Amino acid sequence: MKRELLVSNVDREMKIALEKYEEPKDIRRVLSGMRPTGKLHLGNYFGALKTWVELQEKAESFFFIADWHAITTSYHDTSGLSENTVEMMADWLASGIDPERSTLFVQSWVKEHAELHLLLSMITPVKWLERNPTYKEMMENLKDRELATYGFLGYPVLQTADIVLYKADTVPVGIDQIPHIELSREITRRFNRFFGDIFPEPRPYLSEAPKLPGLDGRKMSKSYGNCIYLSDSEEEVNKKVMSMVTDPARVRKTDPGHPEVCSVFAYHKIFTPEERVKEIEESCRRGEIGCVQCKRELAKNLNNFLEPIRSKRAELLSKRDELIGIFREGSRRAKKVAEKTMEEVRRAMNFLEG
Amino acid sequence: MKRELLVSNVDREMKIALEKYEEPKDIRRVLSGMRPTGKLHLGNYFGALKTWVELQEKAESFFFIADWHAITTSYHDTSGLSENTVEMMADWLASGIDPERSTLFVQSWVKEHAELHLLLSMITPVKWLERNPTYKEMMENLKDRELATYGFLGYPVLQTADIVLYKADTVPVGIDQIPHIELSREITRRFNRFFGDIFPEPRPYLSEAPKLPGLDGRKMSKSYGNCIYLSDSEEEVNKKVMSMVTDPARVRKTDPGHPEVCSVFAYHKIFTPEERVKEIEESCRRGEIGCVQCKRELAKNLNNFLEPIRSKRAELLSKRDELIGIFREGSRRAKKVAEKTMEEVRRAMNFLEG
Repeated sequence: MKRELLVSNVDREMKIALEKYEEPKDIRRVLSGMRPTGKLHLGNYFGALKTWVELQEKAESFFFIADWHAITTSYHDTSGLSENTVEMMADWLASGIDPERSTLFVQSWVKEHAELHLLLSMITPVKWLERNPTYKEMMENLKDRELATYGFLGYPVLQTADIVLYKADTVPVGIDQIPHIELSREITRRFNRFFGDIFPEPRPYLSEAPKLPGLDGRKMSKSYGNCIYLSDSEEEVNKKVMSMVTDPARVRKTDPGHPEVCSVFAYHKIFTPEERVKEIEESCRRGEIGCVQCKRELAKNLNNFLEPIRSKRAELLSKRDELIGIFREGSRRAKKVAEKTMEEVRRAMNFLEG
Repeated sequence: MKRELLVSNVDREMKIALEKYEEPKDIRRVLSGMRPTGKLHLGNYFGALKTWVELQEKAESFFFIADWHAITTSYHDTSGLSENTVEMMADWLASGIDPERSTLFVQSWVKEHAELHLLLSMITPVKWLERNPTYKEMMENLKDRELATYGFLGYPVLQTADIVLYKADTVPVGIDQIPHIELSREITRRFNRFFGDIFPEPRPYLSEAPKLPGLDGRKMSKSYGNCIYLSDSEEEVNKKVMSMVTDPARVRKTDPGHPEVCSVFAYHKIFTPEERVKEIEESCRRGEIGCVQCKRELAKNLNNFLEPIRSKRAELLSKRDELIGIFREGSRRAKKVAEKTMEEVRRAMNFLEG
């Protein structure tokens, strides 16, 4: 099972956590978000966007740009926030997220997220949040503990509000997010116990994403500077592919190669037709195809894959107002659902009706 | 100076904190709130409402019913929230808070409080909040630490949002709130440092409230069951006054009394004309006036004071929709101010405009 492969390199505890959830059968409403911290790269595409594109065919889907979440860690410099939000809009639509099928919105445009966050904050024990591995890790690594803000501690509370506001049952996430969804389920249960059965318990949904390493063989991550962006030009892609690390044991072209440790080969498996992948693998092992030739071929295929995304992206950004308008319309739709939920929540909690 | 008297029985640290603030000279905008936890008593009246009534003559004033704050501590049972909110509306207006002079609103009806709370949460270090004496005290006394919720820890963050959302410069508070206002000032400075000079630093304003003990001589507090409520009937007031503790050294009427330790005398100083207070004092010291007679006289004067409040209160509650309507209108006015502030905040933080 592919799902097994995915968890092979996460710790046992995480694997156990994951086994608790049944394979979602009846996906009704999907919700997921991304923090607008910059242009999206291939890792984001295969790790999330591709799954979203598939899910939007199967279920009512809500996808949001988590601009409030973006400031949990980079609050001291928010100068890029607006621009990153617009770039993300373009990346999503260019990648096939369809505003007709999915409700696409900006978190900070639907104020109900903040209201529900505040209400959930009142029932969430601090110690639950202190147990959160992401927070614990930060607290251990940080020299300047002023960076550990109240908002960062409460990240999972806001995330819970994001999800249950739409009564989403399924949340496509990366495996590192499992503890957060677990916390969301706990908060949801606690709310329901106090105020009645209002929210479904959200389930995580892990995509069967192929592993796509960065240029240097490590995980693709902006902070490592090893990314290929959806917006990279043909020339940038060519240059980046030529710089990719390959099998370190192969010095001369005639040395037999080991495709299983080669990043370039990992890419071929995704971007090159299957029969050709087999030929490349064999001729690499026999020391017949050189890395330069192999990379040129990958660069061509990768550019073929990226070209439609890249040009759609540029087109979308050239009509900036229209692009933003799509998310305005989506936010209006999201707000209607959110308002309905909040009316229910306020009534259950006995707030005087405004 | 009366202000000196006020701080005489708080600890030195608190007194030092207080000395930092200049006597506010140029009060421009006042903001204060109360948690709707039940009917108001005389302690609330003299501790807060009376000051508010005075302040609304001097400055633009915003007073709000802090229904979100109410659930920081009693989240497990919110069944009385709606009714307590309406009762508080009646208590305020009956006590002379004037909706023409002041902007009266309900916190949860102005969602901008939740939005600003969320944004401020991102810049507030957790350790600032852990230092808060109220939180520390709770953590020390609590057996069940699940009661220490994220929302309770963040109480001062929400309070800061409440204040700066209206750019209030002056916050009438009780002396126990000084550390919270100090925290609000710190959070405000930090925000201004990151995002520009948007908010004035709020100053606490201590009312020169007369000390009004509860029926048993302790501080008047609902949890002690020693309160006289603004809504108490004439009979209830009579009964309660008769039960008040007096000078414990005075057993017989002819024993010389010590008015300075007598709760009834403390009340006379407020509710009885000055010359008569002197006569009572002297005849008590000489063992001439008995406690029963003295209490009867107080009950009469107290009922004279309470009667107009009581009947106004009943009248207001008999037209419940009109009463709520007054706060709806106030909330609309408050929202306009809050929206303007939030536009400024969002721009300063570089959120994409919705």
